[in-house]
Amino acid sequence: MGCLWISLLIAFLVSSTAEASYCAANGVPIVRNISEISQDNYGRLGLSHMTIAGSVMHGFKEVEVWLQTFAPGVRTPIHRHSCEEIFVVLKGSGTLYLASNSHKNYPGSPQEFPIFTNSTFYVPVNDAHQVWNTNEQEDLQFLVIISRPPVKVFIYDDWYMPHTAAKLKFPYYWDERCYETSPIKDEL
Amino acid sequence: MGCLWISLLIAFLVSSTAEASYCAANGVPIVRNISEISQDNYGRLGLSHMTIAGSVMHGFKEVEVWLQTFAPGVRTPIHRHSCEEIFVVLKGSGTLYLASNSHKNYPGSPQEFPIFTNSTFYVPVNDAHQVWNTNEQEDLQFLVIISRPPVKVFIYDDWYMPHTAAKLKFPYYWDERCYETSPIKDEL
Ligand SMILES: [Zn+2]
Ligand SMILES: [Zn+2]
Repeated sequence: MGCLWISLLIAFLVSSTAEASYCAANGVPIVRNISEISQDNYGRLGLSHMTIAGSVMHGFKEVEVWLQTFAPGVRTPIHRHSCEEIFVVLKGSGTLYLASNSHKNYPGSPQEFPIFTNSTFYVPVNDAHQVWNTNEQEDLQFLVIISRPPVKVFIYDDWYMPHTAAKLKFPYYWDERCYETSPIKDEL
Repeated sequence: MGCLWISLLIAFLVSSTAEASYCAANGVPIVRNISEISQDNYGRLGLSHMTIAGSVMHGFKEVEVWLQTFAPGVRTPIHRHSCEEIFVVLKGSGTLYLASNSHKNYPGSPQEFPIFTNSTFYVPVNDAHQVWNTNEQEDLQFLVIISRPPVKVFIYDDWYMPHTAAKLKFPYYWDERCYETSPIKDEL
Protein backbone atom coordinates (compact mmCIF):
# COMPACT_ATOMS: atom_id res chain seq x y z
CA MET A 1 0.00 0.00 0.00
CA GLY A 2 2.83 2.40 0.93
CA CYS A 3 4.47 1.37 -2.33
CA LEU A 4 1.40 2.34 -4.39
CA TRP A 5 1.38 5.81 -2.85
CA ILE A 6 5.07 6.26 -3.57
CA SER A 7 4.53 5.11 -7.18
CA LEU A 8 1.65 7.54 -7.60
CA LEU A 9 3.74 10.35 -6.12
CA ILE A 10 6.62 9.61 -8.50
CA ALA A 11 4.24 9.44 -11.47
CA PHE A 12 2.75 12.79 -10.46
CA LEU A 13 6.17 14.42 -10.08
CA VAL A 14 7.42 13.12 -13.43
CA SER A 15 4.28 14.17 -15.31
CA SER A 16 4.22 17.64 -13.79
CA THR A 17 7.91 18.17 -14.66
CA ALA A 18 7.25 17.15 -18.27
CA GLU A 19 4.22 19.43 -18.34
CA ALA A 20 6.25 22.32 -16.93
CA SER A 21 8.82 22.09 -19.72
CA TYR A 22 6.21 21.54 -22.46
CA CYS A 23 3.91 24.31 -21.24
CA ALA A 24 6.26 27.00 -19.98
CA ALA A 25 4.06 30.08 -20.14
CA ASN A 26 6.42 31.83 -17.75
CA GLY A 27 9.32 31.48 -20.10
CA VAL A 28 11.74 28.98 -21.55
CA PRO A 29 15.54 28.79 -21.42
CA ILE A 30 17.19 31.57 -23.49
CA VAL A 31 18.90 29.04 -25.82
CA ARG A 32 17.42 25.68 -26.84
CA ASN A 33 18.53 22.90 -29.16
CA ILE A 34 15.78 22.62 -31.78
CA SER A 35 16.33 18.86 -32.12
CA GLU A 36 15.33 18.49 -28.44
CA ILE A 37 12.06 20.43 -28.71
CA SER A 38 9.10 18.08 -28.61
CA GLN A 39 7.15 17.59 -31.81
CA ASP A 40 3.85 15.92 -32.52
CA ASN A 41 1.51 15.20 -35.43
CA TYR A 42 -1.57 16.34 -33.49
CA GLY A 43 -3.60 13.58 -35.11
CA ARG A 44 -2.65 14.45 -38.70
CA LEU A 45 -0.67 11.56 -40.23
CA GLY A 46 2.59 12.68 -41.87
CA LEU A 47 2.70 16.02 -40.07
CA SER A 48 5.44 17.06 -37.70
CA HIS A 49 4.71 20.31 -35.85
CA MET A 50 7.09 21.93 -33.40
CA THR A 51 6.35 25.21 -31.63
CA ILE A 52 9.78 26.88 -31.50
CA ALA A 53 8.44 30.00 -29.82
CA GLY A 54 4.83 30.00 -28.70
CA SER A 55 2.45 32.27 -26.87
CA VAL A 56 0.28 29.81 -24.92
CA MET A 57 3.22 27.43 -24.69
CA HIS A 58 6.13 29.76 -23.84
CA GLY A 59 4.70 33.17 -23.01
CA PHE A 60 5.62 35.12 -26.16
CA LYS A 61 3.06 37.87 -26.70
CA GLU A 62 3.53 39.25 -30.19
CA VAL A 63 5.06 36.61 -32.46
CA GLU A 64 5.10 32.86 -32.74
CA VAL A 65 7.49 30.60 -34.67
CA TRP A 66 6.75 27.03 -35.76
CA LEU A 67 8.81 24.39 -37.56
CA GLN A 68 6.65 22.09 -39.64
CA THR A 69 7.45 19.08 -41.82
CA PHE A 70 4.85 17.68 -44.22
CA ALA A 71 5.32 14.20 -45.70
CA PRO A 72 4.32 13.87 -49.38
CA GLY A 73 0.60 14.53 -49.76
CA VAL A 74 0.17 16.23 -46.38
CA ARG A 75 -1.74 19.53 -46.43
CA THR A 76 -3.23 22.11 -44.11
CA PRO A 77 -7.00 22.52 -44.08
CA ILE A 78 -8.36 25.39 -46.20
CA HIS A 79 -8.34 28.15 -43.59
CA ARG A 80 -7.99 31.83 -42.80
CA HIS A 81 -6.76 33.85 -39.81
CA SER A 82 -6.56 37.50 -38.96
CA CYS A 83 -2.78 37.80 -38.60
CA GLU A 84 0.33 38.15 -40.67
CA GLU A 85 1.88 34.83 -41.68
CA ILE A 86 5.31 34.39 -43.27
CA PHE A 87 6.92 31.11 -44.38
CA VAL A 88 10.57 30.27 -45.00
CA VAL A 89 10.95 26.99 -46.89
CA LEU A 90 13.95 24.98 -45.66
CA LYS A 91 13.48 21.76 -47.68
CA GLY A 92 11.31 20.27 -50.40
CA SER A 93 8.65 21.82 -52.54
CA GLY A 94 4.89 22.09 -52.78
CA THR A 95 2.00 24.38 -53.58
CA LEU A 96 0.36 27.33 -51.88
CA TYR A 97 -3.31 27.69 -52.76
CA LEU A 98 -4.48 31.22 -52.08
CA ALA A 99 -7.88 32.84 -52.61
CA SER A 100 -7.46 36.57 -52.48
CA ASN A 101 -10.12 38.40 -50.61
CA SER A 102 -12.12 39.77 -53.52
CA HIS A 103 -15.28 40.82 -51.67
CA LYS A 104 -17.22 37.66 -52.45
CA ASN A 105 -18.90 35.79 -49.66
CA TYR A 106 -16.81 32.64 -50.20
CA PRO A 107 -13.11 32.16 -51.03
CA GLY A 108 -13.63 30.88 -54.59
CA SER A 109 -11.16 29.09 -56.82
CA PRO A 110 -7.65 29.70 -55.44
CA GLN A 111 -4.52 30.79 -57.29
CA GLU A 112 -1.71 28.21 -57.22
CA PHE A 113 1.82 29.24 -56.28
CA PRO A 114 4.76 26.82 -56.50
CA ILE A 115 6.87 26.95 -53.34
CA PHE A 116 10.38 25.50 -53.17
CA THR A 117 13.56 25.13 -51.07
CA ASN A 118 14.97 28.52 -50.09
CA SER A 119 11.81 30.38 -51.02
CA THR A 120 9.78 32.63 -48.77
CA PHE A 121 6.07 33.30 -49.07
CA TYR A 122 3.38 35.09 -47.11
CA VAL A 123 -0.36 35.01 -46.71
CA PRO A 124 -2.20 38.34 -46.72
CA VAL A 125 -4.22 38.90 -43.52
CA ASN A 126 -7.56 37.03 -43.68
CA ASP A 127 -7.08 35.47 -47.13
CA ALA A 128 -8.18 31.82 -47.27
CA HIS A 129 -5.28 29.49 -48.07
CA GLN A 130 -3.91 25.96 -47.99
CA VAL A 131 -0.32 24.70 -48.00
CA TRP A 132 0.12 21.29 -49.62
CA ASN A 133 3.15 19.06 -50.11
CA THR A 134 2.37 18.22 -53.72
CA ASN A 135 5.84 16.71 -54.25
CA GLU A 136 5.45 12.92 -54.14
CA GLN A 137 9.15 12.28 -53.49
CA GLU A 138 10.20 14.57 -50.67
CA ASP A 139 9.22 16.02 -47.32
CA LEU A 140 8.38 19.72 -47.28
CA GLN A 141 9.86 21.59 -44.31
CA PHE A 142 9.36 25.24 -43.42
CA LEU A 143 9.38 27.77 -40.62
CA VAL A 144 6.13 29.63 -40.04
CA ILE A 145 6.02 33.05 -38.38
CA ILE A 146 2.69 34.47 -37.26
CA SER A 147 1.71 37.67 -35.49
CA ARG A 148 -1.05 38.13 -32.87
CA PRO A 149 -0.77 34.72 -31.24
CA PRO A 150 -2.42 32.49 -30.22
CA VAL A 151 -3.76 31.82 -33.72
CA LYS A 152 -7.53 31.75 -34.26
CA VAL A 153 -8.12 29.53 -37.28
CA PHE A 154 -11.34 29.52 -39.34
CA ILE A 155 -11.62 26.27 -41.31
CA TYR A 156 -13.47 25.74 -44.62
CA ASP A 157 -14.70 22.39 -45.99
CA ASP A 158 -14.05 23.61 -49.54
CA TRP A 159 -13.30 26.79 -51.51
CA TYR A 160 -16.99 27.52 -52.03
CA MET A 161 -18.09 27.43 -48.39
CA PRO A 162 -19.35 30.89 -47.31
CA HIS A 163 -16.95 32.82 -45.06
CA THR A 164 -19.70 32.95 -42.46
CA ALA A 165 -19.92 29.15 -42.36
CA ALA A 166 -16.18 28.61 -41.74
CA LYS A 167 -15.64 27.02 -38.33
CA LEU A 168 -13.46 28.59 -35.66
CA LYS A 169 -10.95 26.12 -34.17
CA PHE A 170 -9.66 27.75 -30.98
CA PRO A 171 -7.40 26.95 -29.27
CA TYR A 172 -5.68 25.40 -32.31
CA TYR A 173 -4.47 21.79 -32.05
CA TRP A 174 -0.95 22.56 -30.77
CA ASP A 175 -2.24 25.15 -28.31
CA GLU A 176 -4.90 22.94 -26.71
CA ARG A 177 -2.80 21.17 -24.11
CA CYS A 178 -1.16 24.31 -22.69
CA TYR A 179 -4.29 26.46 -23.10
CA GLU A 180 -6.07 24.18 -20.67
CA THR A 181 -3.33 24.51 -18.06
CA SER A 182 -2.97 28.29 -18.38
CA PRO A 183 -5.74 29.87 -20.45
CA ILE A 184 -5.06 33.35 -21.76
CA LYS A 185 -7.53 35.81 -23.16
CA ASP A 186 -8.74 35.45 -26.73
CA GLU A 187 -8.08 39.18 -27.22
CA LEU A 188 -4.94 41.25 -27.69
CA MET B 1 23.38 66.14 -76.57
CA GLY B 2 20.26 64.09 -77.46
CA CYS B 3 22.27 61.03 -76.51
CA LEU B 4 23.02 62.44 -73.05
CA TRP B 5 19.33 63.02 -72.38
CA ILE B 6 18.44 59.52 -73.51
CA SER B 7 21.18 58.08 -71.26
CA LEU B 8 19.91 60.09 -68.31
CA LEU B 9 16.35 58.96 -69.01
CA ILE B 10 17.41 55.30 -69.16
CA ALA B 11 19.45 55.67 -65.96
CA PHE B 12 16.43 57.21 -64.25
CA LEU B 13 14.05 54.48 -65.42
CA VAL B 14 16.44 51.69 -64.36
CA SER B 15 17.07 53.21 -60.93
CA SER B 16 13.40 53.81 -60.22
CA THR B 17 12.54 50.22 -61.21
CA ALA B 18 15.24 48.89 -58.86
CA GLU B 19 13.96 51.19 -56.12
CA ALA B 20 10.40 49.97 -56.63
CA SER B 21 11.38 46.35 -56.08
CA TYR B 22 13.75 47.12 -53.18
CA CYS B 23 11.28 49.40 -51.38
CA ALA B 24 7.90 47.81 -51.97
CA ALA B 25 5.86 49.22 -49.10
CA ASN B 26 2.67 48.32 -50.97
CA GLY B 27 3.55 44.68 -51.01
CA VAL B 28 5.87 42.16 -52.60
CA PRO B 29 5.15 39.07 -54.72
CA ILE B 30 3.52 36.28 -52.67
CA VAL B 31 6.45 33.88 -53.31
CA ARG B 32 10.09 34.94 -53.67
CA ASN B 33 13.37 33.09 -54.14
CA ILE B 34 15.50 34.03 -51.13
CA SER B 35 18.68 33.81 -53.18
CA GLU B 36 17.36 36.66 -55.36
CA ILE B 37 16.56 39.03 -52.48
CA SER B 38 19.11 41.83 -52.33
CA GLN B 39 21.53 41.80 -49.43
CA ASP B 40 23.99 44.38 -48.18
CA ASN B 41 26.55 44.86 -45.41
CA TYR B 42 25.27 48.36 -44.56
CA GLY B 43 28.81 49.51 -43.91
CA ARG B 44 29.70 46.67 -41.51
CA LEU B 45 32.48 44.52 -43.01
CA GLY B 46 31.71 40.79 -42.95
CA LEU B 47 27.97 41.28 -42.45
CA SER B 48 25.31 40.14 -44.87
CA HIS B 49 21.82 41.38 -44.02
CA MET B 50 18.72 40.51 -46.00
CA THR B 51 15.23 41.70 -45.08
CA ILE B 52 13.05 38.71 -46.01
CA ALA B 53 9.87 40.39 -44.78
CA GLY B 54 10.07 44.02 -43.73
CA SER B 55 7.74 46.73 -42.56
CA VAL B 56 9.26 49.86 -44.08
CA MET B 57 10.53 47.80 -47.01
CA HIS B 58 7.53 45.56 -47.81
CA GLY B 59 4.56 46.80 -45.82
CA PHE B 60 4.32 44.13 -43.11
CA LYS B 61 2.83 45.67 -39.99
CA GLU B 62 3.34 43.24 -37.11
CA VAL B 63 6.38 41.06 -37.76
CA GLU B 64 9.64 41.30 -39.60
CA VAL B 65 12.01 38.51 -40.71
CA TRP B 66 15.71 38.94 -41.51
CA LEU B 67 18.39 36.55 -42.74
CA GLN B 68 21.83 37.52 -41.48
CA THR B 69 25.28 36.01 -42.01
CA PHE B 70 28.20 37.07 -39.81
CA ALA B 71 31.78 36.30 -40.92
CA PRO B 72 34.12 35.19 -38.09
CA GLY B 73 34.56 38.04 -35.60
CA VAL B 74 31.49 40.00 -36.76
CA ARG B 75 29.17 41.21 -34.01
CA THR B 76 26.16 43.40 -33.46
CA PRO B 77 26.57 46.52 -31.34
CA ILE B 78 25.52 46.20 -27.68
CA HIS B 79 21.90 47.27 -27.97
CA ARG B 80 18.34 46.97 -26.73
CA HIS B 81 14.89 47.33 -28.28
CA SER B 82 11.35 47.21 -27.02
CA CYS B 83 10.13 44.21 -29.01
CA GLU B 84 10.22 40.44 -28.98
CA GLU B 85 13.19 38.98 -30.88
CA ILE B 86 13.64 35.30 -31.76
CA PHE B 87 16.61 33.73 -33.57
CA VAL B 88 16.86 30.44 -35.46
CA VAL B 89 20.49 29.48 -36.12
CA LEU B 90 20.91 27.84 -39.53
CA LYS B 91 24.72 27.53 -39.65
CA GLY B 92 27.81 28.06 -37.53
CA SER B 93 28.15 28.98 -33.89
CA GLY B 94 28.85 31.96 -31.69
CA THR B 95 27.93 33.69 -28.47
CA LEU B 96 24.94 35.64 -27.21
CA TYR B 97 25.85 38.20 -24.56
CA LEU B 98 22.79 39.15 -22.54
CA ALA B 99 22.42 41.51 -19.60
CA SER B 100 19.14 40.83 -17.89
CA ASN B 101 17.23 43.83 -16.82
CA SER B 102 17.95 43.80 -13.10
CA HIS B 103 16.80 47.32 -12.25
CA LYS B 104 20.23 48.90 -12.42
CA ASN B 105 20.76 52.02 -14.45
CA TYR B 106 23.23 50.32 -16.83
CA PRO B 107 23.28 46.82 -18.38
CA GLY B 108 26.26 45.50 -16.39
CA SER B 109 28.37 42.44 -17.10
CA PRO B 110 26.43 40.17 -19.47
CA GLN B 111 25.79 36.44 -19.24
CA GLU B 112 27.34 34.41 -22.09
CA PHE B 113 25.25 31.85 -23.95
CA PRO B 114 26.78 29.55 -26.58
CA ILE B 115 24.63 29.45 -29.73
CA PHE B 116 25.01 26.75 -32.39
CA THR B 117 23.61 25.26 -35.60
CA ASN B 118 19.98 24.23 -35.16
CA SER B 119 19.56 26.18 -31.93
CA THR B 120 16.95 28.83 -31.24
CA PHE B 121 17.32 31.68 -28.80
CA TYR B 122 15.40 34.79 -27.83
CA VAL B 123 16.06 38.14 -26.23
CA PRO B 124 13.64 39.31 -23.52
CA VAL B 125 11.99 42.66 -24.36
CA ASN B 126 14.33 45.58 -23.56
CA ASP B 127 17.29 43.50 -22.32
CA ALA B 128 20.66 44.74 -23.62
CA HIS B 129 22.40 42.17 -25.78
CA GLN B 130 25.01 41.45 -28.40
CA VAL B 131 25.33 38.58 -30.90
CA TRP B 132 28.92 37.74 -31.83
CA ASN B 133 30.39 35.19 -34.24
CA THR B 134 33.09 34.01 -31.85
CA ASN B 135 33.89 30.99 -34.06
CA GLU B 136 37.08 31.81 -35.97
CA GLN B 137 36.51 29.14 -38.62
CA GLU B 138 32.95 29.50 -39.83
CA ASP B 139 30.23 31.94 -40.83
CA LEU B 140 27.30 32.25 -38.45
CA GLN B 141 23.91 32.39 -40.20
CA PHE B 142 20.53 32.87 -38.59
CA LEU B 143 16.99 34.06 -39.14
CA VAL B 144 15.82 36.88 -36.91
CA ILE B 145 12.15 37.48 -36.15
CA ILE B 146 11.09 40.71 -34.47
CA SER B 147 7.72 42.11 -33.45
CA ARG B 148 6.60 45.77 -33.57
CA PRO B 149 8.55 46.81 -36.65
CA PRO B 150 10.26 48.99 -37.69
CA VAL B 151 12.87 48.30 -35.01
CA LYS B 152 13.99 51.17 -32.78
CA VAL B 153 17.49 50.31 -31.61
CA PHE B 154 19.23 51.91 -28.60
CA ILE B 155 22.99 51.45 -28.86
CA TYR B 156 25.50 51.28 -25.97
CA ASP B 157 29.26 51.97 -26.22
CA ASP B 158 29.89 49.38 -23.49
CA TRP B 159 28.06 47.34 -20.84
CA TYR B 160 28.48 50.07 -18.21
CA MET B 161 26.95 52.94 -20.18
CA PRO B 162 23.78 54.19 -18.43
CA HIS B 163 20.52 53.16 -20.13
CA THR B 164 19.67 56.85 -20.43
CA ALA B 165 22.86 57.51 -22.43
CA ALA B 166 22.22 54.78 -25.04
CA LYS B 167 21.71 56.34 -28.45
CA LEU B 168 18.58 55.75 -30.53
CA LYS B 169 19.36 54.72 -34.12
CA PHE B 170 16.13 55.16 -36.05
CA PRO B 171 15.48 54.28 -38.78
CA TYR B 172 17.94 51.40 -38.42
CA TYR B 173 20.58 50.92 -41.14
CA TRP B 174 18.53 48.59 -43.37
CA ASP B 175 15.40 50.68 -43.00
CA GLU B 176 17.00 54.02 -43.91
CA ARG B 177 16.75 53.84 -47.69
CA CYS B 178 13.06 52.88 -47.80
CA TYR B 179 12.11 55.05 -44.80
CA GLU B 180 13.18 58.10 -46.78
CA THR B 181 11.02 57.15 -49.75
CA SER B 182 7.94 56.24 -47.69
CA PRO B 183 8.24 57.29 -44.04
CA ILE B 184 5.84 55.63 -41.64
CA LYS B 185 5.00 56.65 -38.13
CA ASP B 186 7.38 55.82 -35.29
CA GLU B 187 4.38 54.62 -33.25
CA LEU B 188 2.23 51.51 -33.33
ZN1 LIG C 1 -2.25 29.81 -42.31
ZN1 LIG D 1 18.58 42.68 -31.03
